[in-house]
Amino acid sequence: MAFVMIREAKEGDCGNILRLIRELAEYEKLSDQVKISEEGPCVVGYGLYYFSYSTWKGRNIYLEDIYVKPEYRGQGIGSKIIKKVAEVALDKGCSQLRLAVLDWNKRAMDLYKALGAQDLTEAEGWHCFRFEGEAMRELAGK
Amino acid sequence: MAFVMIREAKEGDCGNILRLIRELAEYEKLSDQVKISEEGPCVVGYGLYYFSYSTWKGRNIYLEDIYVKPEYRGQGIGSKIIKKVAEVALDKGCSQLRLAVLDWNKRAMDLYKALGAQDLTEAEGWHCFRFEGEAMRELAGK
Repeated sequence: MAFVMIREAKEGDCGNILRLIRELAEYEKLSDQVKISEEGPCVVGYGLYYFSYSTWKGRNIYLEDIYVKPEYRGQGIGSKIIKKVAEVALDKGCSQLRLAVLDWNKRAMDLYKALGAQDLTEAEGWHCFRFEGEAMRELAGK
Repeated sequence: MAFVMIREAKEGDCGNILRLIRELAEYEKLSDQVKISEEGPCVVGYGLYYFSYSTWKGRNIYLEDIYVKPEYRGQGIGSKIIKKVAEVALDKGCSQLRLAVLDWNKRAMDLYKALGAQDLTEAEGWHCFRFEGEAMRELAGK
């Protein structure tokens, strides 16, 4: 089992994070959606083998992405990241941790459920919607 | 048509916001989930007839809830709120606006689509997951 340290990302980690973002997009079959801007994400947990980042304000924390390189899967690293995020979230006064997962990613779904998450799309019928790019600028009249 | 002003909420609006939150929960058939804590939400748009609040950090803004009282629906108030949130989001450097909607709420779904949003659950199979309460504390080991 690999030694795992979960820590906040530093500026020097950007190159590795970028590679992981691209690998994740490939895994999610969404490579065409990867656009890198100069504004960095808010990284909570990151090491050489995995990363995640999250956004929060108020009572909810949103875990944006979790990625563990294939050769390091099955060692509980994903769970450790989620647990760390939950710990940070509670310390910051959040009472909910939300994330989104693709329906064919059964491994991730099973993990989240095993850790105590509820599938709100299945249980209550919630759909995720997104505005972005031109649609968002038009919406804002910009 | 009612005169509509979209502004940030003030402390004195809390009583009205609370009433709207309860009405929304009733509409969404989720009244049992309303728990009021002393930490207020981050309110972006709110008037006597409607409210919404949102959370942001980094590149995404999450529009948590939009509610227009039944007697004021059909006047474009929901669209105005979403447009204002998109404007604020772009000003803050966000490039995506995300929200979740219940699958039986066809009126809301149609509105978001008409405004340019993509249904990611339908298009790509994203499911919304949530940890909260005891499950979240257990996860964090607290």
